[in-house]
Amino acid sequence: MDRKEAPVTERVVLAYSGGLDTSVAIGWIAEETGAEVIAVAVDVGQGGEDLDVIRKRALACGAVEAEVADAKDEFAEEYCLPAIKANALYMDRYPLVSALSRPTIVKHLVAAARKHGAGTVAHGCTGKGNDQVRFEAGISSLAPDLTCIAPVRDYAMTRDRAIAFCEAKGLPIATTRKSPYSIDQNVFGRAVETGFLEDIWNAPIEDVYEYTADPATPREADEVIITFDKGVPVAIDGEPVTVLQAVQRLNERAGAQGVGRIDMVEDRLVGIKSREVYEAPGAIALITAHQELEAVTVERELARYKRQVEQRWGELVYDGLWFSPLKRALDGFIAEANEQVSGEIRMTLHGGRAVVTGRKSQASLYDFNLATYDTGDTFDQSLSKGFIEIFGMSSKIAAKRDLRQ
Amino acid sequence: MDRKEAPVTERVVLAYSGGLDTSVAIGWIAEETGAEVIAVAVDVGQGGEDLDVIRKRALACGAVEAEVADAKDEFAEEYCLPAIKANALYMDRYPLVSALSRPTIVKHLVAAARKHGAGTVAHGCTGKGNDQVRFEAGISSLAPDLTCIAPVRDYAMTRDRAIAFCEAKGLPIATTRKSPYSIDQNVFGRAVETGFLEDIWNAPIEDVYEYTADPATPREADEVIITFDKGVPVAIDGEPVTVLQAVQRLNERAGAQGVGRIDMVEDRLVGIKSREVYEAPGAIALITAHQELEAVTVERELARYKRQVEQRWGELVYDGLWFSPLKRALDGFIAEANEQVSGEIRMTLHGGRAVVTGRKSQASLYDFNLATYDTGDTFDQSLSKGFIEIFGMSSKIAAKRDLRQ
Amino acid sequence: MDRKEAPVTERVVLAYSGGLDTSVAIGWIAEETGAEVIAVAVDVGQGGEDLDVIRKRALACGAVEAEVADAKDEFAEEYCLPAIKANALYMDRYPLVSALSRPTIVKHLVAAARKHGAGTVAHGCTGKGNDQVRFEAGISSLAPDLTCIAPVRDYAMTRDRAIAFCEAKGLPIATTRKSPYSIDQNVFGRAVETGFLEDIWNAPIEDVYEYTADPATPREADEVIITFDKGVPVAIDGEPVTVLQAVQRLNERAGAQGVGRIDMVEDRLVGIKSREVYEAPGAIALITAHQELEAVTVERELARYKRQVEQRWGELVYDGLWFSPLKRALDGFIAEANEQVSGEIRMTLHGGRAVVTGRKSQASLYDFNLATYDTGDTFDQSLSKGFIEIFGMSSKIAAKRDLRQ
Amino acid sequence: MDRKEAPVTERVVLAYSGGLDTSVAIGWIAEETGAEVIAVAVDVGQGGEDLDVIRKRALACGAVEAEVADAKDEFAEEYCLPAIKANALYMDRYPLVSALSRPTIVKHLVAAARKHGAGTVAHGCTGKGNDQVRFEAGISSLAPDLTCIAPVRDYAMTRDRAIAFCEAKGLPIATTRKSPYSIDQNVFGRAVETGFLEDIWNAPIEDVYEYTADPATPREADEVIITFDKGVPVAIDGEPVTVLQAVQRLNERAGAQGVGRIDMVEDRLVGIKSREVYEAPGAIALITAHQELEAVTVERELARYKRQVEQRWGELVYDGLWFSPLKRALDGFIAEANEQVSGEIRMTLHGGRAVVTGRKSQASLYDFNLATYDTGDTFDQSLSKGFIEIFGMSSKIAAKRDLRQ
Repeated sequence: MDRKEAPVTERVVLAYSGGLDTSVAIGWIAEETGAEVIAVAVDVGQGGEDLDVIRKRALACGAVEAEVADAKDEFAEEYCLPAIKANALYMDRYPLVSALSRPTIVKHLVAAARKHGAGTVAHGCTGKGNDQVRFEAGISSLAPDLTCIAPVRDYAMTRDRAIAFCEAKGLPIATTRKSPYSIDQNVFGRAVETGFLEDIWNAPIEDVYEYTADPATPREADEVIITFDKGVPVAIDGEPVTVLQAVQRLNERAGAQGVGRIDMVEDRLVGIKSREVYEAPGAIALITAHQELEAVTVERELARYKRQVEQRWGELVYDGLWFSPLKRALDGFIAEANEQVSGEIRMTLHGGRAVVTGRKSQASLYDFNLATYDTGDTFDQSLSKGFIEIFGMSSKIAAKRDLRQ
Repeated sequence: MDRKEAPVTERVVLAYSGGLDTSVAIGWIAEETGAEVIAVAVDVGQGGEDLDVIRKRALACGAVEAEVADAKDEFAEEYCLPAIKANALYMDRYPLVSALSRPTIVKHLVAAARKHGAGTVAHGCTGKGNDQVRFEAGISSLAPDLTCIAPVRDYAMTRDRAIAFCEAKGLPIATTRKSPYSIDQNVFGRAVETGFLEDIWNAPIEDVYEYTADPATPREADEVIITFDKGVPVAIDGEPVTVLQAVQRLNERAGAQGVGRIDMVEDRLVGIKSREVYEAPGAIALITAHQELEAVTVERELARYKRQVEQRWGELVYDGLWFSPLKRALDGFIAEANEQVSGEIRMTLHGGRAVVTGRKSQASLYDFNLATYDTGDTFDQSLSKGFIEIFGMSSKIAAKRDLRQ
Repeated sequence: MDRKEAPVTERVVLAYSGGLDTSVAIGWIAEETGAEVIAVAVDVGQGGEDLDVIRKRALACGAVEAEVADAKDEFAEEYCLPAIKANALYMDRYPLVSALSRPTIVKHLVAAARKHGAGTVAHGCTGKGNDQVRFEAGISSLAPDLTCIAPVRDYAMTRDRAIAFCEAKGLPIATTRKSPYSIDQNVFGRAVETGFLEDIWNAPIEDVYEYTADPATPREADEVIITFDKGVPVAIDGEPVTVLQAVQRLNERAGAQGVGRIDMVEDRLVGIKSREVYEAPGAIALITAHQELEAVTVERELARYKRQVEQRWGELVYDGLWFSPLKRALDGFIAEANEQVSGEIRMTLHGGRAVVTGRKSQASLYDFNLATYDTGDTFDQSLSKGFIEIFGMSSKIAAKRDLRQ
Repeated sequence: MDRKEAPVTERVVLAYSGGLDTSVAIGWIAEETGAEVIAVAVDVGQGGEDLDVIRKRALACGAVEAEVADAKDEFAEEYCLPAIKANALYMDRYPLVSALSRPTIVKHLVAAARKHGAGTVAHGCTGKGNDQVRFEAGISSLAPDLTCIAPVRDYAMTRDRAIAFCEAKGLPIATTRKSPYSIDQNVFGRAVETGFLEDIWNAPIEDVYEYTADPATPREADEVIITFDKGVPVAIDGEPVTVLQAVQRLNERAGAQGVGRIDMVEDRLVGIKSREVYEAPGAIALITAHQELEAVTVERELARYKRQVEQRWGELVYDGLWFSPLKRALDGFIAEANEQVSGEIRMTLHGGRAVVTGRKSQASLYDFNLATYDTGDTFDQSLSKGFIEIFGMSSKIAAKRDLRQ
């Protein structure tokens, strides 16, 4: 906020992936706006090329500056972890993989814009998806003074025109035929769209998956114990882990068992339904375990209400409102609700399923002596008669009325 | 309500299962109250003995009348079907198996009480479970003038005392050692409780399951196509079915693939947590298919709100308030929401999973031409800029304020 | 939908008020689009000129056709009544006056478009209010094939340019200086915006009000009895009324006592906050009475849930989604909830307040014998001990856990 | 919890008011249980006798110890203030007057029980109201090991029997005929029940009110400015106040104008409806002001969600679950939502109404330049077209489907 002197030339910070579209965008934006372009690449675990290779390519494509950041731990701690605490599954299925990475990237874009005195942020999204909203609503919440542009959407930078631009300028990017798959991936999961899946009667084929093995292949089951402390996964099979490590290790182990494949028709924020295929083995394993530990440690009325909060939290994050006031207030609720979510969950990973088989917690609300039907039962059954009578009283009075009407 | 002349002797209608507890209860209630006991057995698909055998046993145990009813179709049409339309899963897991059968039975008990001029209804539940509430709150809503008694809870009729009573009276019931399992089952599923599962760290063993085969056993996958009409399953693989048949056939086919096992710690209405193991292959297959067909045919805002309605509906039914005013009003919402839920879902049943692989619907809201990124795209991307700006406006204004504070 | 042959010239249906802006819009649209303009004026009780005068002015201003409709009863029965049943108060204050009239008008516009083979509908709203959304979202839901235009917003038809157009064309409209007040009114209420109220520290002055007398003026109180049948106001002081008459008579009587003034800062759908002053004496009196009759006749859990439904219903209608699928499903809930809302409410109208002083209902759930502390009490207090113990059980178990942590 | 040595004689802590019932209860409990009784009187602003007089009476009636506490500030800061932040109005009307005082008293009772090694807590409530639940659920959450008794409910200590006991023992209490009014009052308001109000057609008479003057009496209006800081009322007309002072001063000023009378039929937790008359001038004035300041400073989506949270918060507190886990988590949400609720509200108190006439805040989200229709408008209306189109997209697609069905 303390930009002493405005730069002579306007500057644009571009969310850079290293691929064809955003490489071409560097020059395209420069031509369209006359501005200098600063490329920013953020590693949220998408894999692929080395960050330094990406940085050099940005400069070779004409960026005046190029910044790369390893944000994997930040992404896991500050974005994936809240989603685990919220058991966040959009439409009860999708663990918000891309929706979580966008605010992470936004934070880096805004920081770069401040550092370099840029007044505009650019991203590579089209005009019909959710990600454009996540980028732009995020940026306007962190830096309401910045302007956003999206060359693909705003300057009609189609793929064909991008290839032509690339060849005309001799940019150092392979312009081979595009893969049939449109993929977004990070450490929390992977999303795949492709032509034949746009017919919602077609089933996905094995070829679309990378994070998960075929669940139908016979193999030995894997048993894992996950330890949580106040909702945070802190150990796997007794070995301490960071959140990033927890996700990575479960990506491997649950992925090897085919856990975490999702094939769904989804309600986009822009009002259309789309067919999406996801893989998120670690996310699904962690949320499944966390849900069950909550079942053991969270009081009933809090648990019932939290389900509604979780749904709204997931919708907000899906809809790109990570940095919104309501999201912050829901976080206040969720933090309080996770205060006692500590303990161990044993889980069998096998055949595409992550099945909880045991729970253990110092903070357990399960009381063997109250629950048992055997000797040692401490539940005073004589109380039930009065409870039922008064619990059902308002319905009973209404029934009397209804019957006499 | 037009009981012309009150019976000389008081009459009690007893929910009769044919087992030891309720057989003994016939005589026990008679001794405790001096009333005549009318036994009523309702078949909701629990299997086991022939209804006529059960009827005769009731009479042999001292019932003045014994009525049996095949309520399987009624149970499926009037109780399971609304649960399918509501995608009802208590705590996101349990398809309300026992909770659905209780109101079915209650309706028959009340009808019998009216027919025989009984003033009291008796059931075999203990004082620490949910079913006592479901029976008594149900009865007080259909017939607020009737009184309820529960010999096990109210007259301390323990199992040992029941066996002693049985032997003393020479009742024609086997008093062999009780099975280690406490089971409640019907066509919609099966619930198992047993001693070693009261330690929530213990995993279930194969022995507890009857409706489902071991999902880990390698076998061929089964592919099924389920057709819905306004939320009602009307055909399986193109062959017309009643709701009962749909549940039964999917119990078999999904059960053979190990689908529908649930192992959870559950919040009882009486305030304690309990460990429950369920199997509900048909219910889980049908709800999974129904949810996905809704994803294709229900508008986003309706779908988002319906999730909250579903949760409350499930809690109400779990809590025994099937016949309550709120349940009726939620049914009004759910009926309207299912108006367009018609079409076909293709599903692979395998390895414990019911996975949707295809959807087809005349009422689909999925529009290939809006969703595709290929030629033929009809989505006007230029609209998005204005949408995002105004959609994020309130957050952006708040952000400006927060930053200047 | 069965337009046999398309008209040679394109046709536009215009929502016509008779005022300067929409009179000018007739010619303006014709010039901008080359289309023939059909003017449609809908009377929802806004008062002012005779419909026939308005019709003739439209023709004089160049409309090829002009239709006028008295929709006051339709507006009251089909739009205001559902709002009464929903106790609809946006932000707990505003009875949705303008938001209810827009869908009424939309229905007439679409019918005219069908009748005259028009492909476009035009309205006079600006681009920063809610009404543009209510018109356009309404039209796209009733007739998704129609296009919408808004000359003020889309063709930059400012007031100054409109006056110039008017004078240049010699249109028969007075182009006197605009009133300082921007007003929208109908039988359900009146909204006023004006410059000095845009400073939210300024209080409204008496001059802005027309439907209500100054509440501070000393006068005799007025007592009224309103009779409802299933949520519908059917009689005032025992005399049968239509819904329209109920609103009109209470507008007079409650308005004479200063009831129904609202001064608030409101969240617009377009993301900004605006200062609004409303008067809605009949609406506030009817909703107040209806709420209290619900308090007497609606069971507690239904009443608690209905509050949430009411809020969402009000937000949807405010946001222009009257014809949306979610609105329809909520209506299903609300209809069911009003089934027993029959009886009489006695109310004192005085000094700006509508105060309920008596309730009487055959469907009352208030039971003197249960409520009284006097002789005749039929409430069995011994039941409470068990109720409290089990009602508080889950919190108590959590407390034990929290204390030992 | 570190009671070194258990007292030789059992001890009971009694919530003592100084009136007939609890004075008699001292001896009654001693006789029924053989325990020593410790009387605890907590001043939450109920007025009446001096605390020292009450203390001495308890000892004279046989208490082995008597403790009195001035908890007025604690009550205002820790119980009334959260209710103001939550805009808590049960059934949209009742500011939870008695429901807030009970947890305050519970805290003192538990502290006294710990201090004196008592194992039981006693209170004077009947078995058909809400307060028994508030006491007992509160105590079981703070001290799950304590037992609760209620002599009136559990030992059938009727008023007649209490008078007889009093006279037989010569206790120093006036046993005059009971007032026709049953009253509970504290600094946040006053509740009145009485025989003739049990007929819900009867209007209250002036005689039942004490905190408020007749609103119908002509008098000069009073204008007040209330300053809030993060939701806390911190000044009245510019003069700094504690929360207690804010409530007290507004009780006087708003009470003098007849503000805050409430006459309603209410849903009790025990399942019955009751008729209640309340006065809460300060509470209603403060909540009205706080609501409007939120309208100015809280972002729309947060404000919409907060309404639901407020409703649930109010129900929980009404239902006696102040110390429950869900209440704590909702407090986390509410605290976050109040972070920016700072500024001034100007209000006219007159004729029974507290009407906001002005708002001023450094944290205001109202932006004159966005809201105005005059020169200076900064709202870009061209964005609206795209917004409306995409905002209404899902409804429009559904409409197309519905029309073709």
